[in-house]
Amino acid sequence: MISVAIVDAQTPGNVGTIARAMKNFGLSDLYLVDPPDLDPDGEAYALAGQAREDVLPNAQTVSFEYLIENFHTVGCTAVTNSDDRRHVRYPFVTPRELTDSLTTVGTETVIVFGRERVGLHNEELSSLDEICSIPASEAYPVLNLGQAATIVLYELRSITVDETQHPTEIVRASERDIEGLHDQFETFIEPVGIVPEQQSRIRRLWRRVLGRAHPTRREVSSLRGVFRRAENRLREKQAQKPNEDTTKNKNENE
Amino acid sequence: MISVAIVDAQTPGNVGTIARAMKNFGLSDLYLVDPPDLDPDGEAYALAGQAREDVLPNAQTVSFEYLIENFHTVGCTAVTNSDDRRHVRYPFVTPRELTDSLTTVGTETVIVFGRERVGLHNEELSSLDEICSIPASEAYPVLNLGQAATIVLYELRSITVDETQHPTEIVRASERDIEGLHDQFETFIEPVGIVPEQQSRIRRLWRRVLGRAHPTRREVSSLRGVFRRAENRLREKQAQKPNEDTTKNKNENE
Repeated sequence: MISVAIVDAQTPGNVGTIARAMKNFGLSDLYLVDPPDLDPDGEAYALAGQAREDVLPNAQTVSFEYLIENFHTVGCTAVTNSDDRRHVRYPFVTPRELTDSLTTVGTETVIVFGRERVGLHNEELSSLDEICSIPASEAYPVLNLGQAATIVLYELRSITVDETQHPTEIVRASERDIEGLHDQFETFIEPVGIVPEQQSRIRRLWRRVLGRAHPTRREVSSLRGVFRRAENRLREKQAQKPNEDTTKNKNENE
Repeated sequence: MISVAIVDAQTPGNVGTIARAMKNFGLSDLYLVDPPDLDPDGEAYALAGQAREDVLPNAQTVSFEYLIENFHTVGCTAVTNSDDRRHVRYPFVTPRELTDSLTTVGTETVIVFGRERVGLHNEELSSLDEICSIPASEAYPVLNLGQAATIVLYELRSITVDETQHPTEIVRASERDIEGLHDQFETFIEPVGIVPEQQSRIRRLWRRVLGRAHPTRREVSSLRGVFRRAENRLREKQAQKPNEDTTKNKNENE
């Protein structure tokens, strides 16, 4: 089980943003230490999306000590120590590493986010069990509180989200269907009038394009239909006025 | 090169949030289609952090067609089609898959985000080259615009961020140092008074704890120092009043 705590947030909007991200990524238990006033008509509720119905009204106000005593605590910070001379913010894990390590452990964990400008104080971080830090641009690594929390909760989704809105897997066409399309393409380019010595090059080129695209069944059958119809039309035309067409296509190919 | 475009954003705050995320993750080129008014004293600049100095003032207002004509376009949407019966929002890639595919390709790509409530329209998505969708909770997969963009730009960081604020790697202690700590622990637990038949079990337990923690050099040397001092004190005490101590430790161990 993973919970979220926000320590001493100044702006209600950030609490709402974090509540929304929690609901987006399957979390529900929010703890607030020294929270701002969360008016149901104010910015926290305005930014919480559907989390205004559960995550936000169910949030519990607790003390910092309550978190320490009841959870495996992970403090998030943009600013880390750079080596092991100081252990307040070192060693740290990235959100992805945190997810990997929590995946294999059954634990009541709380992810702790700090105040907007200065984050978690050193005294607070010193009493937390792990430090997590989002890798960002060296030129400007300090994320907004709500955005930082969104990223950490996004990374934790493999632990917290049972079902996503996505279909399990994009269904690629079978090799048989894809080869069927290649066969159709081959007979299609004959009446296009490409000179025979170029046809194998064009077929190979088309095979490379399709090979990288991993087409779906529907894409393959639709394209096959297009080439079949094109081929039929071309052969009809060829039957009607063979000389004219051959000349035209030859010119186009030069 | 990766750029960002926001189509028909309603709230200036989201533009500022996205600009900040761009700067956090090493991007600089922002295109706006039908933007709201971005007052330098308003919410966009207030939420942009240091991106108020460059990303936001340098943003270019362009037409949707300009994006189509000049970029490989990736449209972001929470709502996907579920199978290949409709291709407006299918197939799609996740932000991580997008990052993997763009890593190997040199291209001018623009990541396109839509308006707050309804995202990108179907007509818009139809003319974009790829669809990207963030996996989230099936119960509530619709992220706030600024939060969705933050996640996508976070995932793209391996392409866009040269140097993060993090040290390259957490430096783990050498095996030699770790074995040194184990040696110290072994001689430390003797005067603690743990009965000899238990000592190997305790040493093994300690080896497992340290084995999972991958300690740094500093952690190993500090703990070694602690155990050395404790051992010295214990042996001093033992030398002073051997009988009393042995009795006490025996009881403690029972």
